[in-house]
Amino acid sequence: MTPHPFDPLSASEIESTIAIVRALHADAQFHVVSAQEPRKAQLTQWVTDASSPYPPRIAEVVAITTSKVFEGLVDLASANIIKWERREGVQPIITLEELVAVERGCRVDPGVIKQCQLSGIAAEDMHKVYCDPWTIGHDARFGSERRFQQALMYYRPQMDHCQYQYPLDFCPVWDSLAKRVVAIDVPSVRRPLNNSPPLDYHHISLANRGGYRKDLRPISITQPAGVSFSVEKRWLSWQNWRFHIGFNYREGIVLHDVTFNDGGKSRSIFYRISLAEMVVPYGNPDHPHQRKHAFDLGEYGAGYMANSLSLGCDCKGAIHYLDAHLPTQNGGIRTIKNAVCIHEEDNGILFKHTDFRDDSTTVTRARKLVVQQVFTAANYEYAVQQDGTIQPEIRLTGILNTYAINADESTNGWGTRVHKGVNAHNHQHLFCLRIHPNIDGALNTVYMIDAMPSDAPVGSQDNLFGNAFYPKRTRFETIEQAMTDYNGATSRTWDIVNENVINPQSGKHVSYKLVSREVPSLLPKEGSLVWKRAAFARHAIHVIPHADDQLWPAGDHVPQTSGDAACGIAEWIGDGDKSIANTDIVLFHTFGLTHFPAPEDFPIMPAEPVSLLLRPRHFFECNPAMDVPPSYSITPSERARNINGFSHGDCDDSKEVNGVIASP
Amino acid sequence: MTPHPFDPLSASEIESTIAIVRALHADAQFHVVSAQEPRKAQLTQWVTDASSPYPPRIAEVVAITTSKVFEGLVDLASANIIKWERREGVQPIITLEELVAVERGCRVDPGVIKQCQLSGIAAEDMHKVYCDPWTIGHDARFGSERRFQQALMYYRPQMDHCQYQYPLDFCPVWDSLAKRVVAIDVPSVRRPLNNSPPLDYHHISLANRGGYRKDLRPISITQPAGVSFSVEKRWLSWQNWRFHIGFNYREGIVLHDVTFNDGGKSRSIFYRISLAEMVVPYGNPDHPHQRKHAFDLGEYGAGYMANSLSLGCDCKGAIHYLDAHLPTQNGGIRTIKNAVCIHEEDNGILFKHTDFRDDSTTVTRARKLVVQQVFTAANYEYAVQQDGTIQPEIRLTGILNTYAINADESTNGWGTRVHKGVNAHNHQHLFCLRIHPNIDGALNTVYMIDAMPSDAPVGSQDNLFGNAFYPKRTRFETIEQAMTDYNGATSRTWDIVNENVINPQSGKHVSYKLVSREVPSLLPKEGSLVWKRAAFARHAIHVIPHADDQLWPAGDHVPQTSGDAACGIAEWIGDGDKSIANTDIVLFHTFGLTHFPAPEDFPIMPAEPVSLLLRPRHFFECNPAMDVPPSYSITPSERARNINGFSHGDCDDSKEVNGVIASP
Repeated sequence: MTPHPFDPLSASEIESTIAIVRALHADAQFHVVSAQEPRKAQLTQWVTDASSPYPPRIAEVVAITTSKVFEGLVDLASANIIKWERREGVQPIITLEELVAVERGCRVDPGVIKQCQLSGIAAEDMHKVYCDPWTIGHDARFGSERRFQQALMYYRPQMDHCQYQYPLDFCPVWDSLAKRVVAIDVPSVRRPLNNSPPLDYHHISLANRGGYRKDLRPISITQPAGVSFSVEKRWLSWQNWRFHIGFNYREGIVLHDVTFNDGGKSRSIFYRISLAEMVVPYGNPDHPHQRKHAFDLGEYGAGYMANSLSLGCDCKGAIHYLDAHLPTQNGGIRTIKNAVCIHEEDNGILFKHTDFRDDSTTVTRARKLVVQQVFTAANYEYAVQQDGTIQPEIRLTGILNTYAINADESTNGWGTRVHKGVNAHNHQHLFCLRIHPNIDGALNTVYMIDAMPSDAPVGSQDNLFGNAFYPKRTRFETIEQAMTDYNGATSRTWDIVNENVINPQSGKHVSYKLVSREVPSLLPKEGSLVWKRAAFARHAIHVIPHADDQLWPAGDHVPQTSGDAACGIAEWIGDGDKSIANTDIVLFHTFGLTHFPAPEDFPIMPAEPVSLLLRPRHFFECNPAMDVPPSYSITPSERARNINGFSHGDCDDSKEVNGVIASP
Repeated sequence: MTPHPFDPLSASEIESTIAIVRALHADAQFHVVSAQEPRKAQLTQWVTDASSPYPPRIAEVVAITTSKVFEGLVDLASANIIKWERREGVQPIITLEELVAVERGCRVDPGVIKQCQLSGIAAEDMHKVYCDPWTIGHDARFGSERRFQQALMYYRPQMDHCQYQYPLDFCPVWDSLAKRVVAIDVPSVRRPLNNSPPLDYHHISLANRGGYRKDLRPISITQPAGVSFSVEKRWLSWQNWRFHIGFNYREGIVLHDVTFNDGGKSRSIFYRISLAEMVVPYGNPDHPHQRKHAFDLGEYGAGYMANSLSLGCDCKGAIHYLDAHLPTQNGGIRTIKNAVCIHEEDNGILFKHTDFRDDSTTVTRARKLVVQQVFTAANYEYAVQQDGTIQPEIRLTGILNTYAINADESTNGWGTRVHKGVNAHNHQHLFCLRIHPNIDGALNTVYMIDAMPSDAPVGSQDNLFGNAFYPKRTRFETIEQAMTDYNGATSRTWDIVNENVINPQSGKHVSYKLVSREVPSLLPKEGSLVWKRAAFARHAIHVIPHADDQLWPAGDHVPQTSGDAACGIAEWIGDGDKSIANTDIVLFHTFGLTHFPAPEDFPIMPAEPVSLLLRPRHFFECNPAMDVPPSYSITPSERARNINGFSHGDCDDSKEVNGVIASP
């Protein structure tokens, strides 16, 4: 079965690629084996002209052989390596195998054992010492020629306790290729292991503390007649929407070729959408905490870190799953069962109006379709709605990164004592959404919209009563003009416009509007290490002309970059004068939140959502969801004649609960 | 049965009040008959000391007798009128009866009939002419001594068509007491009735256009074992929360005495929360459109305009309803059946963590409790969550206010041609949430929190790597200091703090954080009519010391105020130097959105949500929801021993949908 060019590599394609590479490079360790994004020109030709050739199926490989980094391309049809180039001074993405190795290595390192003893841990308890293997970020002492991780150290009094309550104060640096500790960063102020009683959140601990609350009764969500969507291969169809669901090691879910059937005509909206990068800078200036600013996608991979979503635990209702196939470092296959889940949800009222004079009413409930993944850094989903809206949403949960703090020590404002002995540092979660639009075609333009009062003074002819206001539209003609920040005071939004297509009703260009309200500034200062490395986070918006292979805004190889050499978006910006008007463009949007921890976030954090909207504006000629069956609709003349209106069976399952309800 | 002092007046209490007033003032027309908010000192004494007297049960009355406005207070126990004072130069809230009268009166007015003829409507078709009776706002020609409405004019070709597609271009002014048209505002450019084919959204129209989509399968949401909340009288208990649900003509839902049971100790959080006012300024400067800036609560009343929520149509699941009893203008009782609905919803993942090294996992799903009302201006709800969060949310839907536009006419940027002949003007929806906090007691203080980079330069001793950042805290000591705006760049939030109570873990004051991201500036300019009348909307935050009767930020009597005399919040601010630190305070927060219409909003607008969060920070010693039963929990040692973890029955209803799903 020929894969669609947007499809991820199948398990057998990964196996073939590895075999082809291993035939020439027997000791290759694989960091990336992934489908190359199809060249857009070839893909577009193939889609529009059935007689044109199937785009070449190319596997991208990043491998390390004898400590050297190689970028390769393998043509799967011909089984040829068509590129194999050494890259010096860069480090490829970290593998799961590398992560696992750090903890094992640290536990037996004499220097680490000594530091543990200084912290109050006996040498025979080293199996109770845990370390979170983190990217080292960039540490000038080590550069990027060799391959390092830092080990954030913790302790579990017993196996089922949570190590984040017992942080250790020193930080080993691990050489991933030599597989040994090469340095240990030890603070000048020592912070011995704290001895607070364990506060765990798992079921055994809760049982010991008196058990779970007993007053929560089940909510059952079912679809007795089945779901409303269909999935064929990786193409999803639902409520006029159709799109392809891809997946790769780095971004996880990728949506391609997003279209909407508008009264029988399939209209293109997005060529490709993905979460392309994120960075989590921490705000404590003391060495080595500045190294904590993980690029979770470029350094670990949202695909590599994807959770297997167990049935009934992560989602409710009727769920369709997709598996993910990924390479292992040693050339095997790792399959993540249920890496992506797809389901429908009721979404409250879609629209409602009651006319006060005649009691005519229509009320229609909304649905959304959710395409979701969970990776250990975040829970990420695209909610697609009947009214033409796409809502990328992230829910942050899990466990705070923690560090030790003495009883008499101040956080100096750089963190919060969330529990006895536990300092959770200030941090930001900054996500970069990559939007390759295709609003009624590839030639698109971005405008910035600010809600502005009229310039005319109160009392003047043009603004007699002072109430005049309007949407100020700024057209982005060059890359530099588009490098813009959020402005809450003007409710700033950005429109992705096709200037070549006019909405016949409004006379305006068809567009999709980016509505995003959680857009903090990058708090690490200009010129700082994070500012240099995370160029995408310097502004809320960057727009560049499309070019094949310009996918990763923090660079292709993110670990250990210093930010001194421009890569990723910093490179693509160039001198900023390239035209981005009425051409094939890509928009990068950085959003997220700033987190000042509190005790409520410990030991596990209630989910905090961050979301944004991509809304059709002047795209449709009218509300595109009027034909969604209403819960109830009755016209004025039906009211006047005292006859029943229209009622849809979907609300029959509701049940009134009358009078006083006995407590459970 | 003695009502609780927070209870709304019962139907019989309203009847008694009216009878007591009518005995002395036989021709009184009732604009308000509502429970006076209990004096806080009396209420608090009664609550804390069982031997102290039951607070007096007082009905507030606003009535018009022989064209004069009176404010009255009726003591229900003694059946005495204890206050009856004439108020000159103010106009009380508009009644439903007054609204209904305008359309009838306009249809038979010769001047209106003539204007309709000029628009192209035959005199015998006046029954097809509709008018939306709006508050006149303030029109200097008419002042506030007499009582006026403006009539926004529309036409329905047939009874079941939607009049907003056929706006007329002139605007009668209606004298509510004389019951006649006193003026007609006619524009200099005339815009005859448009003849576009009707685009209706009701079921008959959809049937004529080919029927509803057939690919939507039902989602069934049930609670087979019943709900998890209990309602006793008007006290709601759910998941450690307890609060009183009130209702009045003006604010609709009011929550009182919001507490959380924290490990057996009932802790107070809010004394009272309500949506206290809103204003909807329109941005077209041409006379008479400046008059369009409705104060939906102060001029119409969110209680008076509340919809009766029909079973199964507005909400899904197991629903508990509360009715509302309101006076009619003529001294009768109007009962709104099902004015408030209460139900539980699944709320996605509450928290989840998977440890990559041992696959231990806990995943817990969240619930929220929704207390909801729909009034014709908005759909409003409070979502209360297990983690201590309260989320007020508004969904805007319904039909745009529309005005006529000629085919060759420009909107001049003040509106959008959403359909042939239909101009929808730019507007804002600005809501004012009134929060009377009680964070572990009445003595509270508000701080403003800005996420800020360290002042120390990159490379300096204090900020070597440039990554330092912290929450800058500004304590509000006076009313003037608290008059602050939103700042998106610093992710500004506001903390309501009890400085007398310390969180034992963090050492910080207990607090609740206001997180609100949809906070547009008031776009009508300083000194404009709207700016003068809607003082609450000049800033995102106002804080004042509590005083009984300071409830309505736009003034007690909102219709026809000019804003020249300070009332409501403008009056309470005074010279701004009153202390608001560590005292009993009330916070007013203005939030909302700016709406530049598009064809997608026509003929009926897909719901657009606006919400904010009140989150506990340093209030609890740890995550307060750890004892919510998880969907699944397994510890490291259970994984190691290969035994099952804990699984909660609540997710058993989920169903996997495998493979290719046939299209419906």
